[in-house]
Amino acid sequence: MNNLDPSRLEKQLALLVEVDKLKAVLRRTRVKSADARRENSAEHSWQVALMALLLEEYANEPVDVAKVVKMLLLHDVVEIDAGDTFVYDLEAAKLQEEKELKAAKRIFGMLPSDQGDALLALWLEFEAGESPEARFGKALDRMLPMLLNYHSDGQSWKEHGVSLDQALTVNRKIEKGSTILWDKVTDMLAEAAEKGWLKS
Amino acid sequence: MNNLDPSRLEKQLALLVEVDKLKAVLRRTRVKSADARRENSAEHSWQVALMALLLEEYANEPVDVAKVVKMLLLHDVVEIDAGDTFVYDLEAAKLQEEKELKAAKRIFGMLPSDQGDALLALWLEFEAGESPEARFGKALDRMLPMLLNYHSDGQSWKEHGVSLDQALTVNRKIEKGSTILWDKVTDMLAEAAEKGWLKS
Repeated sequence: MNNLDPSRLEKQLALLVEVDKLKAVLRRTRVKSADARRENSAEHSWQVALMALLLEEYANEPVDVAKVVKMLLLHDVVEIDAGDTFVYDLEAAKLQEEKELKAAKRIFGMLPSDQGDALLALWLEFEAGESPEARFGKALDRMLPMLLNYHSDGQSWKEHGVSLDQALTVNRKIEKGSTILWDKVTDMLAEAAEKGWLKS
Repeated sequence: MNNLDPSRLEKQLALLVEVDKLKAVLRRTRVKSADARRENSAEHSWQVALMALLLEEYANEPVDVAKVVKMLLLHDVVEIDAGDTFVYDLEAAKLQEEKELKAAKRIFGMLPSDQGDALLALWLEFEAGESPEARFGKALDRMLPMLLNYHSDGQSWKEHGVSLDQALTVNRKIEKGSTILWDKVTDMLAEAAEKGWLKS
């Protein structure tokens, strides 16, 4: 690395300023402690990265947790261009893939090429969901909104009319990253259905 | 680790729900892309952790970047109890220390003790600012709001009547973590003073 190339640092800082826009991308989850405003993707990224540090021990396979954290800090930056897609909107999810890949290339392309290429590769590895780190990271990314929603009396499920079946089908991938966490999720969902927060 | 102790997982998830409150702790920085609303400490924590991944090469000494990221993901959770202190309010900063230590003990104390002790130790190491990782992490934590503020036409400096002298004095610690980044910061501050965003 050439630390003395000023344009290198300029490019890195420009990216950091560019991704500031993630604070303006809103998700469906409500923030209980902040007057139930919608959560943004930047604060979500913080919480899911912290979740990886806390729950590493539940991964089905041994994982390099630093790599999981890195993936989770980066995974949503593409939403700056592509927006957030509601996890239950399966039609939108298909179209989203292409938009996100284009976004990843543009955003990581702002960096010096050695660094941009490495981060794009990490982003692609996460998206593919085939390495132990990607599987575990994706499991956490799916579980976290359910945990928060459960602790907000199912507000977002009720708002969008989500059913127990939908929740179980869409989130089943959690099991590939962690059977222990999937067991916990199915318990929560069953309880949520009993309370009427999820449609039967 | 005993993955089959259900109370262990319950404690970890309870902490994750507890720290959700960090999304409601507001800082002085304004978010340019989101109608200049105040930034919260959760989204700040995401951005500064990502900053560590991007700028590792500028640390004065070699650092374990995964450790820096971990510290930065955790460093602000104490604000749930203690609130955020404006970096230019030196009087408040002194009182803050005690409140934050108490908060750290309460919050990390929610975890299984092996994990809680390890995270408290990491938090204390960051606060002490004496290891290479803590010095570099603290430098980033100081630099980031200046970078964002610079790119928002100095809005927060103007709002709070900050002078160039104050900015240079309060942020000088950046140099201990990275002389290259400190050089960049002093350039930005000089330019901000010229534009009248900082008082002379």
